[in-house]
Amino acid sequence: MRRREIPVDGFHFIDSTLREGEQFRGAHFSIADKLEIAALLDCFGVEYMELSTPIASPQSADAIKALADMPRRFKLLTHIRANLDDAKLAVDCGVDGADVYIGTSDYMREYSHGKSLDEVIEVGREVIDFLKRNGLETRFSTEDTFRSNFADVMTVYRAMDLAGVDRVGVADTVGVADPLQTYNMVSNLRDVVNCDIEFHGHNDSGCAVANAFSALQAGATHIDTTVLGVGERNGITAMGALIARLYTYDRALVEKYDLPLLAEIEALVAQKLKIDIPFNTPITGAVAFHHKAGVHTKAVLNNPTTYEAIDPADFGMSRIIDVAHRLVGRNAIRNRATGLGIDLEEEVLQLVTAQVKSLADEQEITTDDVDRILGATVLAVDD
Amino acid sequence: MRRREIPVDGFHFIDSTLREGEQFRGAHFSIADKLEIAALLDCFGVEYMELSTPIASPQSADAIKALADMPRRFKLLTHIRANLDDAKLAVDCGVDGADVYIGTSDYMREYSHGKSLDEVIEVGREVIDFLKRNGLETRFSTEDTFRSNFADVMTVYRAMDLAGVDRVGVADTVGVADPLQTYNMVSNLRDVVNCDIEFHGHNDSGCAVANAFSALQAGATHIDTTVLGVGERNGITAMGALIARLYTYDRALVEKYDLPLLAEIEALVAQKLKIDIPFNTPITGAVAFHHKAGVHTKAVLNNPTTYEAIDPADFGMSRIIDVAHRLVGRNAIRNRATGLGIDLEEEVLQLVTAQVKSLADEQEITTDDVDRILGATVLAVDD
Repeated sequence: MRRREIPVDGFHFIDSTLREGEQFRGAHFSIADKLEIAALLDCFGVEYMELSTPIASPQSADAIKALADMPRRFKLLTHIRANLDDAKLAVDCGVDGADVYIGTSDYMREYSHGKSLDEVIEVGREVIDFLKRNGLETRFSTEDTFRSNFADVMTVYRAMDLAGVDRVGVADTVGVADPLQTYNMVSNLRDVVNCDIEFHGHNDSGCAVANAFSALQAGATHIDTTVLGVGERNGITAMGALIARLYTYDRALVEKYDLPLLAEIEALVAQKLKIDIPFNTPITGAVAFHHKAGVHTKAVLNNPTTYEAIDPADFGMSRIIDVAHRLVGRNAIRNRATGLGIDLEEEVLQLVTAQVKSLADEQEITTDDVDRILGATVLAVDD
Repeated sequence: MRRREIPVDGFHFIDSTLREGEQFRGAHFSIADKLEIAALLDCFGVEYMELSTPIASPQSADAIKALADMPRRFKLLTHIRANLDDAKLAVDCGVDGADVYIGTSDYMREYSHGKSLDEVIEVGREVIDFLKRNGLETRFSTEDTFRSNFADVMTVYRAMDLAGVDRVGVADTVGVADPLQTYNMVSNLRDVVNCDIEFHGHNDSGCAVANAFSALQAGATHIDTTVLGVGERNGITAMGALIARLYTYDRALVEKYDLPLLAEIEALVAQKLKIDIPFNTPITGAVAFHHKAGVHTKAVLNNPTTYEAIDPADFGMSRIIDVAHRLVGRNAIRNRATGLGIDLEEEVLQLVTAQVKSLADEQEITTDDVDRILGATVLAVDD
């Protein structure tokens, strides 16, 4: 299978925490919230930020204007339906670009906007043309791309490319795509259009991060992400998880983004949304660098890369070697003892390890319990 | 790209909540816990359960014996290092099969067990042969397959296949694989061996679910999962998320497993481990069927499949149409009003929608606030 290289400067993050993320349950961002989140993401180095359409509410328009005026390196986008009224409002708010979308699946055409394919293309051309004349960077995305007719979407994308759009978007709006499908879709699209390609993927079937990476391997240039993946339903590609994926692919990423800021950004957004950071979050989750089984801890103490694809230090995180459980091995106990300034004979070490296992079989234990057993050993030896 | 069909009876879940899951931080399962979790997973319909090696501690061996004796449909496995001592203990505990593993990457060979490739093959043959003579189903897995030399792993797998192993395992032990790599690895392996193929994938770079699905598309027959994906570090393929992935691929899954039990199983394991179910969990997460933006709610009220790949009813879950926010649309407000027995004229509906948006711009609002605005409208009309 022909996979493209993903050069570290060949992709861009479109952070949509203030658009897709505003569609998350309980998201009520004030303008001050939006500015605070944007400032931190700007420091991190995201290349774009996308905000809710100005037509959503008066504050939505005011927030765009406030972000347009803030000191920033990212380009500011807003997300609008394919119609001129929305496009005019976008221009008035001072954004750098507009992400235009319209549904192309039978579902969306029948139950959402009711337009034919020709009408979709016509309104798309009209809106893109208007935005370009006003100096905006333009993106045209189909909605529900993977449940749309393949010939239809390729026809629409080709028409938009010829109309001079800067970027076309592939959207897995309902989270049904798998990585091989995504690879095929983007790979074929790469041959059809000359413009940039954006991918937007929902996580209903748990593949939003993998699909984004497959899209990059097929030639996509822009990926929509949100902090912690928040969005409609269970959300989209999480920025941190995609960072983990890209870092394991190429550590040159450490030069491109301010990676130690990741945990702070996630904590800020989690606090605003009153959610906990999921335990299984790559890199920043509470257990991301937690080692437990004897075989693992022995090897990690020898060389962390045996069981760590990611160096926690690159993200300002720390490794944990857990010794308080029945799966503990001698090497981890020895390491703990050494840390406490206790030097154990091999026989004593075996005995202590067996004691820890035995206690852990009876009850939940903590590191304090292990330390107590180690301390008692010292006293016994001293006797 | 040639993708295999995944027939609904062509794959098996190996639940490893009581082995890999026991390597999760804070997992201290008692024998009673293990029996309780196993009973529920048996009802759900997992085909295998894998337990920690009997050598880990006395309770670990006792737990295997207890599960061997319980009434069950699943096959009971234990997870052992490639050596005869561990294999003998496994046989003594009464399991149906043993999952044998050994590291094959340079990292693992240098820092973990120190064996050459020939020694790996020799000990593998010896252990498989012993287990088979004792009537056990056998699996041989390399550890850290994706960072191992490709020729080495194919050589080892071929030797084990010829030695009569029932199943070979591909393991992404450190969570570095991506779906296209996984597809390639398993696809090539499918051509090299005749036995079944198992996939075990960690989630350090957020691709454990997608990689498992790619493995199935390449010809794998068995997937290691745990409830909520718990395991070493941030865990492995989560059963529920893989169920979501397989369900969106083929709804015939509803006949194979007792899907409405999923939420109960996850709640039980979460309670034992004192963890919260992550908000972004497919199907069972609090927001999995939460619809918010106006464009979405309008279409979902017309036809839920517009923005739902999964029917919540198949899992005993419910849909939520959120009306208390600035992104609300007229159709969702009308639906809420109808639910309250209020029939609104189009003009009044527009006014109410604008009022809700305006209030939501100022403060966090709840459904009660929306209902109050709707109620006030009725009073005003009555005047």
